[in-house]
Amino acid sequence: MAPRKQQEIFDATLRLVAEKGYDGLTVEGVAERSGVNKTTIYRWWPSKAALLGAALVEADVLGFEAPDTGSLRGDLVALVAGVRRLLTEPPSASVAVAALGAAVRHPELDVRPFFADRFAREREIFDRAVRRGELKESVDPMLVLDLLAGAVWMRAVFRGLPVPDDFPAEAVSALLDGI
Amino acid sequence: MAPRKQQEIFDATLRLVAEKGYDGLTVEGVAERSGVNKTTIYRWWPSKAALLGAALVEADVLGFEAPDTGSLRGDLVALVAGVRRLLTEPPSASVAVAALGAAVRHPELDVRPFFADRFAREREIFDRAVRRGELKESVDPMLVLDLLAGAVWMRAVFRGLPVPDDFPAEAVSALLDGI
Repeated sequence: MAPRKQQEIFDATLRLVAEKGYDGLTVEGVAERSGVNKTTIYRWWPSKAALLGAALVEADVLGFEAPDTGSLRGDLVALVAGVRRLLTEPPSASVAVAALGAAVRHPELDVRPFFADRFAREREIFDRAVRRGELKESVDPMLVLDLLAGAVWMRAVFRGLPVPDDFPAEAVSALLDGI
Repeated sequence: MAPRKQQEIFDATLRLVAEKGYDGLTVEGVAERSGVNKTTIYRWWPSKAALLGAALVEADVLGFEAPDTGSLRGDLVALVAGVRRLLTEPPSASVAVAALGAAVRHPELDVRPFFADRFAREREIFDRAVRRGELKESVDPMLVLDLLAGAVWMRAVFRGLPVPDDFPAEAVSALLDGI
């Protein structure tokens, strides 16, 4: 399939899940919205779960580049600010919250590749920090990422509270400086 | 309503949501399971969302006491170990994951009282640590709790990875000692 056509299908998928939630997402709806034949979509992705899983990883609109600001602190603050945007600002917030919420209830919607793909890029931040002598090699990058990204999720989604502008810097400082 | 009767209704509610998910939870099902008349349940809780919200806060089976081990580190490690149990071990894991996942998609299911109720108790850990001189008064307890609890959620639910036995101690050490 042409990459542009594929992106149109992913866009339609993410827009639909944002508007109607996972339960309202159908391959038929994506076909209608994207103007691509339903059987063509099924040939590439055998279910709506597979389609949404692929869209989360491959859609340009959710594209993710690890920040490279020159310092570990700058990179982590930029990273947390990115998670804050993803979970609280349109258009990504309704997509991310609907898809991640659905994944909890629907094991067939596998979001592990989404996190694994991001993690592969996020690791670079830690590799560079170790090379610059800013970080001990023994620090577990996944633990740091889970602490930081999980805090944004807790605050924004579960507590339903605003995530203040200085939240990224405060969260990173708690980790880099200790409490 | 007699407290024991109320606990039986909450138990039935939590068992049903664990077995069938939020979509499969009905007040009729709770009535059948608990042997309490449907109209009686509706008189106390006007919807299944209200019923589940109350059960999350008031069910004895999810009862929560803030740990008091004598040190901030001990208290926080015990707290994270409790969140790990809540999210990964039966019977609480299927209840907590189903209910919290549903709350993301169903704003009428308000889990904020669940987190607010826990937070009111968890604060004691930080108050005691400040009084003992273990913690600066300027540290934001909610930030610390969101970092720690969010990390367990990220690892166990979103990444779908095992949460190792030493995860609570490692996560707390990252915060207390810095990375």
